[in-house]
Amino acid sequence: MKKFLNQTDNFIVDSLKGYAKAHEDLIYLNLDPVFVTRKEINPNKVLLVSGGGSGHEPLHTGYLGQGMLDVACPGHVFTSPTPDQMISAIEYCQPKSGVLFIVKNYSGDVMNFEMASEMITFDHQTVLTNDDAAVFNSSYTTGKRGVAGTVIVEKVVGSLAESGSDLTACKVLGDKVNHHSSSIGVALSSCTIPAAGKPTFSIGENEIEFGVGIHGEPGRKREKIKAANLIVEDMVAAILKDFDEKSLDVKDPGGILLLVNGFSGTPLSELYLIYNAVAEQLSKKNIHISRSLVGNYTTALDMAGASITMCLLDDEIKKHWDAPVLTPNLRWGN
Amino acid sequence: MKKFLNQTDNFIVDSLKGYAKAHEDLIYLNLDPVFVTRKEINPNKVLLVSGGGSGHEPLHTGYLGQGMLDVACPGHVFTSPTPDQMISAIEYCQPKSGVLFIVKNYSGDVMNFEMASEMITFDHQTVLTNDDAAVFNSSYTTGKRGVAGTVIVEKVVGSLAESGSDLTACKVLGDKVNHHSSSIGVALSSCTIPAAGKPTFSIGENEIEFGVGIHGEPGRKREKIKAANLIVEDMVAAILKDFDEKSLDVKDPGGILLLVNGFSGTPLSELYLIYNAVAEQLSKKNIHISRSLVGNYTTALDMAGASITMCLLDDEIKKHWDAPVLTPNLRWGN
Repeated sequence: MKKFLNQTDNFIVDSLKGYAKAHEDLIYLNLDPVFVTRKEINPNKVLLVSGGGSGHEPLHTGYLGQGMLDVACPGHVFTSPTPDQMISAIEYCQPKSGVLFIVKNYSGDVMNFEMASEMITFDHQTVLTNDDAAVFNSSYTTGKRGVAGTVIVEKVVGSLAESGSDLTACKVLGDKVNHHSSSIGVALSSCTIPAAGKPTFSIGENEIEFGVGIHGEPGRKREKIKAANLIVEDMVAAILKDFDEKSLDVKDPGGILLLVNGFSGTPLSELYLIYNAVAEQLSKKNIHISRSLVGNYTTALDMAGASITMCLLDDEIKKHWDAPVLTPNLRWGN
Repeated sequence: MKKFLNQTDNFIVDSLKGYAKAHEDLIYLNLDPVFVTRKEINPNKVLLVSGGGSGHEPLHTGYLGQGMLDVACPGHVFTSPTPDQMISAIEYCQPKSGVLFIVKNYSGDVMNFEMASEMITFDHQTVLTNDDAAVFNSSYTTGKRGVAGTVIVEKVVGSLAESGSDLTACKVLGDKVNHHSSSIGVALSSCTIPAAGKPTFSIGENEIEFGVGIHGEPGRKREKIKAANLIVEDMVAAILKDFDEKSLDVKDPGGILLLVNGFSGTPLSELYLIYNAVAEQLSKKNIHISRSLVGNYTTALDMAGASITMCLLDDEIKKHWDAPVLTPNLRWGN
C-alpha cells in the first residue's frame, strides 16, 4: 500500500485539518467530537445534516456551504459516524427550523443517525438515499445502497432549504429526488483502506466488478473487461430497468440529469468517454439529457471505476439544481 | 491495463465528444482537425490559445470559458498537437486583438506552436511555462518543464484578457505569473498510456519518484516512501530553494497561492492531508497562504501522486485570480 499519510489513526483528522485550512473562509472544523459546519450558520433555515464513513470525498464535507449542506459528520474510513458527532454538531448550530438528516442507506449509518435523532430535542426528519440499482441487500445494507445520487439530493434540497422552505417540504423534495434517481457502478480495481493496508478485494488483470458498491462491496457479477460502449450499455440497461420498476418515465420531456461519477482512481478523460457512450445510448432511446455533471463526486478511496446516475427531472428539481451553490468542491452561479 | 475505452486510436476523440456534449452550453468541438473553443467567441479580445498532449485533463480543455482560455488544441496522449490544429482554430476565431499562446515547455509543444505562430497572419506572442523546480533538462524538455503552474497562468491571464487588456499586457502578466510560480511533484505509481498498454515506468511497492514529471519522466531521485509530512518537507524545501534562486521573497506579506494538485490516481482526502502538511511547514517559516486550490487540475493519466505549486502573489495577480471564472472544470464567482 502506498498512500500519502502519517499515521493511519490520524489519516482523517490530518485530512480534515487540511480541508478546513484550505477553505477557512467557508468551513468550521470541530475536532472533539469531529464535525464540520459552514462558517456562518443561519439558525433560521432548516439545518441540513449529512455524514457517513470517510473515504468518499468530496462527499459529504466538500458540499457544505451556501445552497447545500450545513453540517457533515465524517466517521473513520468506511465507518459510520457516532451519534455524539451529530448531536454536538446540532447543538453547536442551534437550529430554529428543524433538522433534516440526509443519510445513505447503510445499516451502521441508519442506526447511528437514528440514535442521534432520538437524542436531540430539535424537530427532525430523515431522507434515506438508496439510489443504487445494482443489488438488493448487500454487505452493509438492508435494501438498496445509497450512492452518488446522494449528491443530487444534497444539492437540490440544499437549494430549497436555502430559500426558506420548511422541514416537511425539504423532506418531501429529498424523498422525491431520491426516488427519481438511479445509479450503477463498475470497478476496475479494488480500493485500499489505510488501516487495513491491503486491497479490500482482489480482482483479475482483465476483470471488472459490475454493480460494485462504494466500499468495494460485491455487485452483480464479476466479468471480463470489454469495450467501454458495451459496459455502458449494460449500465444504462440496469438503470432503465430500475426506472421501469419504479414506474418512472425517463422519456419525459423534462429530461434527465446525467451524473458520470469517478470513484477517484479513474482519469477525467475516461469519465468523459463514458459520458459520450451514455449519451449515444440515450439518444437512440429518445431520452433527453437536460443537465450534466462529470467528475469525482462520490468516491471510494483510490478505487478505479465509475458510476452512472440518472435523475429524472421535473421543473422543481431542475430549478433547485440550477440554483447557485458555493461549497469547497461544488460551485456555480453567484 | 484496464481502462474505460473502445479503440485506443479513438480514445481522445471519444473523450472529447463526451466533454463537448456534457458542456454543450460552453464548448464548441471541431473534429478535423481537432480543436475546442468557447461556444461564443469574442473576436475583440486577445485570443488565449493553449494545448498540448492529452492525458492531463482538465488541463487545458477544462479551462475554456469566460475568464480563462478561448481555445485548446489537444494532441494524442502525451503527444504535441500539430500546427494545423492551432492554425485552423485561430482562423475559425478570427481574432482582432492578437493571439497569446500559452505553451508548456516541452520540445514538441514548443516546436509545433512556433511553427503555427510562423504560419498565421495574426499578431501573436507566447508565454512559455516552466514552473517545475524538479530538474533542469528532462526526457522531453530543454530547460525546466511546464507543469501545474500553467493553470495559474491560464486563470490569471484569462481574467486580464477578459477585461480587454492588450496582447503585450497579457504576455507580460503571463511571464510574471510563470516566474512567480514553482512546482514539484511526487509519484507513487506509474501512469499507463492507452496505446502502450503497459506502465510507462516501473516502481517498487515501497518507492516514490521524487520530482516526477507529468508524463512519468524521471525526477530527482527514487526513494523509499516515508511519512507524508517528511515527503512534503522535501517538496517545500525544493520549491523554496527555487524561489531563492529566482530572487523572489516568499515571505512577502502578499502571501502565496498554494495549489495542491493530484495527478489523478490519488484521492482528495490525501490531497487535503498534503495541504495540511504544507500549511504546517509554511506556518513555521512565516510564509502566508493567501489563496488555495486543492484537486486534480493537471494530471498524468491514472498516475497516483501529487504536486505542490506555490505562486507568489501581488495585488495584480490576486485580483485576476479572484475574478469570476466559468469553465467546465474550474468555476467561481458569477
